[in-house]
Amino acid sequence: MKALAAIIGIGITKFGEHWNKGIKELLAEAQLKALEDSGISEKDIQQIYVANMCADSLSGQLHLGSIASQILGINVPSYRVEAACASGGVAINAAINALRHKDIVLVSGVEKMTDVDTAKVTTALMGAGNEEWEEFHGATFPALYALMANAYMHEFGFAEEKFREILSKIAVKNHKHASKNPFAQFPREITLQQANNASIVAYPLRLFDCSPISDGAAALVLCKPELAKKFCDNPVYVVASAVATDTLALAERESLTSLKATRLAANDALNQAGISIKDINVFEVHDCFTIAELIAMEDLGIAERGKASKLIEEEQTYYDASIPINPSGGLKAFGHAVGATGIKQAVELTKQLRNEAYCQVENAEFALSHNVGGSGGTAAVHIYARRLL
Amino acid sequence: MKALAAIIGIGITKFGEHWNKGIKELLAEAQLKALEDSGISEKDIQQIYVANMCADSLSGQLHLGSIASQILGINVPSYRVEAACASGGVAINAAINALRHKDIVLVSGVEKMTDVDTAKVTTALMGAGNEEWEEFHGATFPALYALMANAYMHEFGFAEEKFREILSKIAVKNHKHASKNPFAQFPREITLQQANNASIVAYPLRLFDCSPISDGAAALVLCKPELAKKFCDNPVYVVASAVATDTLALAERESLTSLKATRLAANDALNQAGISIKDINVFEVHDCFTIAELIAMEDLGIAERGKASKLIEEEQTYYDASIPINPSGGLKAFGHAVGATGIKQAVELTKQLRNEAYCQVENAEFALSHNVGGSGGTAAVHIYARRLL
Repeated sequence: MKALAAIIGIGITKFGEHWNKGIKELLAEAQLKALEDSGISEKDIQQIYVANMCADSLSGQLHLGSIASQILGINVPSYRVEAACASGGVAINAAINALRHKDIVLVSGVEKMTDVDTAKVTTALMGAGNEEWEEFHGATFPALYALMANAYMHEFGFAEEKFREILSKIAVKNHKHASKNPFAQFPREITLQQANNASIVAYPLRLFDCSPISDGAAALVLCKPELAKKFCDNPVYVVASAVATDTLALAERESLTSLKATRLAANDALNQAGISIKDINVFEVHDCFTIAELIAMEDLGIAERGKASKLIEEEQTYYDASIPINPSGGLKAFGHAVGATGIKQAVELTKQLRNEAYCQVENAEFALSHNVGGSGGTAAVHIYARRLL
Repeated sequence: MKALAAIIGIGITKFGEHWNKGIKELLAEAQLKALEDSGISEKDIQQIYVANMCADSLSGQLHLGSIASQILGINVPSYRVEAACASGGVAINAAINALRHKDIVLVSGVEKMTDVDTAKVTTALMGAGNEEWEEFHGATFPALYALMANAYMHEFGFAEEKFREILSKIAVKNHKHASKNPFAQFPREITLQQANNASIVAYPLRLFDCSPISDGAAALVLCKPELAKKFCDNPVYVVASAVATDTLALAERESLTSLKATRLAANDALNQAGISIKDINVFEVHDCFTIAELIAMEDLGIAERGKASKLIEEEQTYYDASIPINPSGGLKAFGHAVGATGIKQAVELTKQLRNEAYCQVENAEFALSHNVGGSGGTAAVHIYARRLL
């Protein structure tokens, strides 16, 4: 097992509605926390990547690389990477590539979404889909994922009530996890009944099937793995970094119930790490909608096609059960500050592998993050290890 | 001299007003031309970076990485990098980093700006500046560069008429170069009188001091330098790739008449290549405004501070004179499809080093590109060599 990078510092803001903070303040908070956690000086940072999706259309602000380096008072190479809601995941991938020439790299992700009305956010988010073939015709992301949910019900023969129960159980579990995490946007539990009866957003998806609109930021300090022990006693190693792409529009896919980009990235990542999916002790998967968590379980190989619901019904995906999924609360209940989400997953899994998590998975050795852009046009999968075998 | 990468394929669209083509069509044209030029198959591409600045606010389209890979029918890692008008330059930097793990990488840049009204484009472009401290108060990019021009006149004691003549001579030269380039947006000459008397945009900048609003795309196929000869007889080597940042807002800079980011990136690049600025035979610099070309000449070290005007007066910067600058026509006359500009500079310099340029510089061994984001928040400098010494 070969490490690609070591995580030596993590920083995160609370996800939620930060009406008193702009992009710059959120980014500064996460970056400075990550630096403090790493114990290094800002002068040691040799490159910065910033993940962000919507600052252009929601804040009129591009060029976040310049802001990110200015926050630290340095003049290093610093630029933004974007792949819609997978921006954070691909930023980590880009940062790992930069370790070709650099020793220490900062990766941050930020999104500021709550200062504008919901219609504007919905339009901005559709930038992740196909503008000509989807957005122009009125499709929204809840609608696209609702199409997937309907296709899934049909393809695997689920009765409506039964399927409703499965989706709700995902939401209930993620809210339960978030209830222990003070950084979560919704740190409170919901009942199965609440989830079942919530208002419909796009059939069959109801309110608690959907991740919220969030502000937030997260940051990681990465270094060459061989330098890690110089900076801290408990580095977490990135042992696989995989990104794959698929068609932008849902209509052009081979399947509506499986994301090829996830399957390709997961295979690549597991090959890089030289382990099997069964070796992973804790997952943060991209549950922008509850149906996305169900499909992710199958695309990652946690369950066979059409069979993930069984694990959910048996409550096997709670943090203290056999296959812990989204112990942070997931996008669903921790929040989904889109550009920050992929970085937040890495931050939360680093906490798991350091034994510092709020829903701590016992004896976790390997963790996997899964970050999706759009309806599956991009997927980034990373694997993290507590130690190198 | 160590090569970081080899350019084995180039592709570019005409820059201008493409009313019959969207982002996807422009990107496809450039990418497919680059592939054809390289002679490799799309299946050989292992990663893609797409440079783009404004597709979110001008076309409602993000997630261009997915589009770029879909164009080629492949599923490789593909994502967008952005640093305002320096997006192209930083995309090349990111692509070079990816050669850590990959053999062959595609870098493309695209911008589609002419489908909306000028006010909307002006607002979108201000995303490159500081939204809170500049855009909010009504500053536009012509205004920011006009501030620099005024500061320059004052700092170096230029009389208004004399300075007007110098700026105009830059425009006349770049139009002369563009007149030979069929891919240029304005392939026609202008007279000194026309430039001197054109309407004022932001004093002292007049119409012909400003680069246009453009559609366009450009692409490069890069490979590990040691593989280059396998694919072609005339690879061009990238021997330095440097990016530096500075404050986002002009008001926070150490100087209004010099870009620290350019100075830092240029020094870094020349150190990487192990050569002096005098060894460079041909330049493509970021002349978003004529004053920017003047300042770039000094920040790159072509002329001492306050002295670049002398070279311009003496017409030393024509392609067939001693220090050829912007033989493509520059941003000014070739056009400035912002996300594509940094890639277009590399395409044009590759043509120079292959002896295929329209304004061919004789016996050029080394070329340098200089790409700026905003008013200097980012600068990317690359050095290219015809052969490795």
